[in-house]
Amino acid sequence: MSSAPEQRPPRLAALLGQGVATIDTPALVVDLDAMARNLQRMADYAQAHGVKLRPHAKMHKSAALSRRQLQAGAVGMCVQKTSEAEALATGGVSDLYISNEVIALPKLQRVAALARALQARGGRLAIAVDSRLGVEHLAQAMGAGANLIDVFIELDVGQRRCGVAEPADVLPLAQAIARHPALRLAGLQAYNGSAQHLRSVAERRAALDVVIARVQEARRLVEAAGLALPLVTGAGSGTFGLEATSGVFGELQAGSYLFMDADYARNQADPAQPAFEHALFVKTQVMSVSAGHVVVDAGHKSHAIDSGLPRVHGEALEATGCSDEHTTLRTTGSAPLPTLGSTLWLIPGHCDPTVNLHDWLIGVRGGLLAGTVAELIRVDARGCLD
Amino acid sequence: MSSAPEQRPPRLAALLGQGVATIDTPALVVDLDAMARNLQRMADYAQAHGVKLRPHAKMHKSAALSRRQLQAGAVGMCVQKTSEAEALATGGVSDLYISNEVIALPKLQRVAALARALQARGGRLAIAVDSRLGVEHLAQAMGAGANLIDVFIELDVGQRRCGVAEPADVLPLAQAIARHPALRLAGLQAYNGSAQHLRSVAERRAALDVVIARVQEARRLVEAAGLALPLVTGAGSGTFGLEATSGVFGELQAGSYLFMDADYARNQADPAQPAFEHALFVKTQVMSVSAGHVVVDAGHKSHAIDSGLPRVHGEALEATGCSDEHTTLRTTGSAPLPTLGSTLWLIPGHCDPTVNLHDWLIGVRGGLLAGTVAELIRVDARGCLD
Repeated sequence: MSSAPEQRPPRLAALLGQGVATIDTPALVVDLDAMARNLQRMADYAQAHGVKLRPHAKMHKSAALSRRQLQAGAVGMCVQKTSEAEALATGGVSDLYISNEVIALPKLQRVAALARALQARGGRLAIAVDSRLGVEHLAQAMGAGANLIDVFIELDVGQRRCGVAEPADVLPLAQAIARHPALRLAGLQAYNGSAQHLRSVAERRAALDVVIARVQEARRLVEAAGLALPLVTGAGSGTFGLEATSGVFGELQAGSYLFMDADYARNQADPAQPAFEHALFVKTQVMSVSAGHVVVDAGHKSHAIDSGLPRVHGEALEATGCSDEHTTLRTTGSAPLPTLGSTLWLIPGHCDPTVNLHDWLIGVRGGLLAGTVAELIRVDARGCLD
Repeated sequence: MSSAPEQRPPRLAALLGQGVATIDTPALVVDLDAMARNLQRMADYAQAHGVKLRPHAKMHKSAALSRRQLQAGAVGMCVQKTSEAEALATGGVSDLYISNEVIALPKLQRVAALARALQARGGRLAIAVDSRLGVEHLAQAMGAGANLIDVFIELDVGQRRCGVAEPADVLPLAQAIARHPALRLAGLQAYNGSAQHLRSVAERRAALDVVIARVQEARRLVEAAGLALPLVTGAGSGTFGLEATSGVFGELQAGSYLFMDADYARNQADPAQPAFEHALFVKTQVMSVSAGHVVVDAGHKSHAIDSGLPRVHGEALEATGCSDEHTTLRTTGSAPLPTLGSTLWLIPGHCDPTVNLHDWLIGVRGGLLAGTVAELIRVDARGCLD
């Protein structure tokens, strides 16, 4: 049995200058023109509304795309995992926020090492907590020193996942953080992931009313005790317009806006938010044709289906089934089925876990029909789970 | 933007000799003792029933585990993708069957190169077809020469995915293959993936009655025309006992038996098949605790949920939700919730796409409570989609 941690030889994704038509399938392709428009639209929106933008890099896991977002005005990047932070720091990103809890002391020692390394270079690390144990472990890992890491207290604002359950639970944690000189109480983490995918604008507004009320209550209680929550951070690509205009959120964490997945397109559009274009596609080939359906050569090892099956770009076809390496498609109109060997473009149901299945994003300029490969973008933090 | 195809630095998964308790989370862990018993049980079963075993490597994607299955008597390995075949050949596997269709000529040229390379070393490549175009492209790619690659005709035996639709469609393809000296008509691919997960033995038997009748009809028609389908290959871990005793299947392709996922455990056991143990686990840590639930640090970027949420090994807990990096658990009994920082072991719903999310399988001997890391098994074909 092999047991040495050898490297796998690099796999050929595509070559710069190669025409789109000759990209092998399945392949994860980014329409760079659409992506650039999405990037600018969100940067403009944040600037116009006076809120900071800290895009979530859990979506693209790429240092190169992070750098591009920073160049357009983002104040830093969010990640979910310590190893994602390490991968992006290796790629030159200096202001990182792990918007998630870490409990294990060995991992918090990595967090501490990264916080000190970033600070030594003029950067900054932040992390979320939702428990007294989390604060104590973090303080233990950070050791002596002042103001070494920013700490956000996560409040459950409706998702029923992580975060302290009630606004009144924030104050004791704020007091615990304030007792450790190495930790700086930076604010409140308030993100409702499930609200992003509520279909109607009215449902999303109702969910955000709850979010904002809970945030205001937590802030009031903390301030009444003589402490401050300087920044409230949260929001996703489905609701950011509501957070941005709430008067309480100072920072937006939206990430999917850059690529836009099929599931977000199922939402009723909010006219108060800029619209974004699909920029992420799985190029596939029809590999089998039957009387009533065709099968393409990309399954859920190519595109995640946790938020539903993919859409087919520009075709009257719908996905009716998906297995590891196959997606079955049927017509939705009267047009004939595509022929054996045809190219089709799938819009993944959910960008984040889709990108995580690939080592490279193949960046195309000039469109999906006649464009060329202009960039290979490494998914630096692919598989970074710890 | 970075565009050179550089290598990522290798990530530390675990160290040989390390105790299970100190493996960082989330981590994909194989109970090597359970795996060895599963491996031997299936090898013994195939030998006792006089059928060949060609396990499907789409499940573990590992050359080292393939070699171990071959040493225990397997005749070769199945894969789904050309790049999987290349990865396993690089790892020393010499007898490979791509049990899936390939249409693109550039990819078939890779198939042809691999077929010639394996044959030059005393090995063999096989591939499935279900279309005239597939046969013609394959023949074109193979070029001149005799008997260079084995070709299996895929017949749809109830899954409604790939394969020719009717038994009568097999003969014209057999005749097309027979016209090309480089291609050897090797037999019939007859796999019903959906039958594997029918819950009752009676439902699986009914589905296999259809499979077997369709295989017999195809064979009868081909033989009546003076051609032969020497081998019928198929079967998965849910039904292989039915194929093995059918009198028509000569080769079993089961793969999941080595690890056994949570979904297979939901099947009613067939007393005619040996039982297999769960050998694949995601080690996780409780990272957040609320009044009614806990959250662990592994989500569907760690374990695939296409076949349902994971089970929790040895605990009265059930998964009630899963997002990219989190799984939410609730109690199913009266026991208290696990405490913050506790270790839990998830049994993934579906092994194949779970393994594909990881670079390494951490092999443990001596059990999940007190064992030690005895092997690091590389997922050689992780991300091999093309």
